[in-house]
Amino acid sequence: MSLEGLRVMGIDPGLTRCGLSVVQAGRGRQIIPVAVGVVRTPSTAELAERLLRLSRAVGEWIDDYQPDVIAMERIFERGNVSTVMHTAHAVGVMVLAAAERGIPVHMYTPSEVKKAISGNGRADKKQMTAMITRILGLSEAPKPADAADALAIAVCHCWRAPLIARTNQLTMKAANQ
Amino acid sequence: MSLEGLRVMGIDPGLTRCGLSVVQAGRGRQIIPVAVGVVRTPSTAELAERLLRLSRAVGEWIDDYQPDVIAMERIFERGNVSTVMHTAHAVGVMVLAAAERGIPVHMYTPSEVKKAISGNGRADKKQMTAMITRILGLSEAPKPADAADALAIAVCHCWRAPLIARTNQLTMKAANQ
Repeated sequence: MSLEGLRVMGIDPGLTRCGLSVVQAGRGRQIIPVAVGVVRTPSTAELAERLLRLSRAVGEWIDDYQPDVIAMERIFERGNVSTVMHTAHAVGVMVLAAAERGIPVHMYTPSEVKKAISGNGRADKKQMTAMITRILGLSEAPKPADAADALAIAVCHCWRAPLIARTNQLTMKAANQ
Repeated sequence: MSLEGLRVMGIDPGLTRCGLSVVQAGRGRQIIPVAVGVVRTPSTAELAERLLRLSRAVGEWIDDYQPDVIAMERIFERGNVSTVMHTAHAVGVMVLAAAERGIPVHMYTPSEVKKAISGNGRADKKQMTAMITRILGLSEAPKPADAADALAIAVCHCWRAPLIARTNQLTMKAANQ
């Protein structure tokens, strides 16, 4: 099953910094980078204002690049409580932006992304950045780190999508037998 | 400082059940109930679909009742991880709905709400329901529990708002001296 032409938006969610990327599946395992960037909202602003800015920025990216699907990093209840909550609010707003436009969202854990990209679920940031630079044929490493992460999530989905599609087909076949 | 006529929407956030209320400040400490209800989204549906439904329902409440301000319960990273994350996503979506309409949001912790309503930050559900029923002059207790909680949050803001306004005035006065 080929997914050539599939356009995937990758999101590394955050309220202070949110990494965004768009890639397109080529032939075989080839992936073409389309866009990458980081949306920032000032930590001095009120939560409502920050969520509004993020929602508008992500909505504009979706409208501009028209992805077929959005891949997002699944967050865990780890680390600083307030940061986790802010990130969870941001995820809610971005999943809503996708739903309002009828675009499906897939979530991947950090280790799923690392494994898909580098073969190692515990790869460090440096290894991941090197792999992403090579996979996408970039002349230099994407910066900042959030941008590289957003690309990694999108690539992860491109490579997992055929498997997900195949599994769905088999499930439907089994259900129809 | 009188806030007579101030219309407050109270939200007890949740994705499976979200309590909503609208009250209006009367003379002195009098408060008039306007509306109360619960929005439910099916736990069998996808997160995106659930957030979309919640966002639309809360948006309709805001547009129908035109509150001056929204009071929401502040959530903590306690209890079941998945429930907390779902609630945090729901909060993000509802704060966004308020921000998109230019309505300010105030957050209160559960103990702040309990203290404002019953004088006791550790009041139990039964005590809180009895107090809310009496304060609003209802003929019977509001049901379900999420509805009563949403009313309590709105009443809490009505009684705290004059103090908040006074504090802001004093802060501005001090800054201008």
